[in-house]
Amino acid sequence: MTSPSTHHTTITSDPTVPLVRIVREFDAPAEKVFRAHTDPELVTRWLGPRGLEMRVEHYDCRTGGSYRYVQAENGEEYWFHGSFHEVRPSERIVQTFTFEGYPDAVALETLLLEDLGDGRTRLTTTSLVDSFEGRDAFVVSGMEVGVNEGYERLDELLAG
Amino acid sequence: MTSPSTHHTTITSDPTVPLVRIVREFDAPAEKVFRAHTDPELVTRWLGPRGLEMRVEHYDCRTGGSYRYVQAENGEEYWFHGSFHEVRPSERIVQTFTFEGYPDAVALETLLLEDLGDGRTRLTTTSLVDSFEGRDAFVVSGMEVGVNEGYERLDELLAG
Repeated sequence: MTSPSTHHTTITSDPTVPLVRIVREFDAPAEKVFRAHTDPELVTRWLGPRGLEMRVEHYDCRTGGSYRYVQAENGEEYWFHGSFHEVRPSERIVQTFTFEGYPDAVALETLLLEDLGDGRTRLTTTSLVDSFEGRDAFVVSGMEVGVNEGYERLDELLAG
Repeated sequence: MTSPSTHHTTITSDPTVPLVRIVREFDAPAEKVFRAHTDPELVTRWLGPRGLEMRVEHYDCRTGGSYRYVQAENGEEYWFHGSFHEVRPSERIVQTFTFEGYPDAVALETLLLEDLGDGRTRLTTTSLVDSFEGRDAFVVSGMEVGVNEGYERLDELLAG
């Protein structure tokens, strides 16, 4: 079996629109990767960098649902909220995203799952915002560490 | 009293990001313009061009809520749905929007209300999508007629 930490995460800033694209493969079928994104009990076990404790206020991952959660470290709390525009089982999730430290900034996020066969799945997520400045600030804010560590934790969860 | 149909609607395609900006003034206070966007009984009386009948499946305009409605004409039905990312009374609404004829296309819409004094309000709405092609197709699709006629109907509703 492949080690769960061998996959590389590709993070690309689109040259023409203010969007970040993240591509990552997982050694698990699409249905399992999907469930790790929709079941709040599972989401809290991998989303975000190591060392932060995640608590869900609500996480109603269905078309028309919404979410709010906090990530906490050393007494500091970081709150996030958004709504689920569309949830297509094992295929696609479209949601909004706001870090409440910047309450007026909103990203439109799309997650696409592609079945690669042999129990492997490619996940592509895009985050679209309304300015290149906002997009670039997000990319240099340490987002990469959170994404990489989060997906390593997701590998571990999927392998477990 | 100013005639309710004197205000011009400005529709601008942003040169740097795939976004359309619509600016329109109304002879009514922000609270009243806001309510015309959040109360489904009122929304059905002005949203979209004349001649289409609008029916709401659900319209739960609050942070974390969602909506789905249909506009019908001569037996043709056009369905729309989305979620409400944030609703700040008399100030701001952030929502997603999909015309179900193009189920994979999603716009992130922001409505801002500015109190201009003397019972007047400026409404600025922006629609952000992930490609210039998608944005331009939306603008030439007849969107302008729907927006102009819709806001004329909203003038009439606010004056009534």
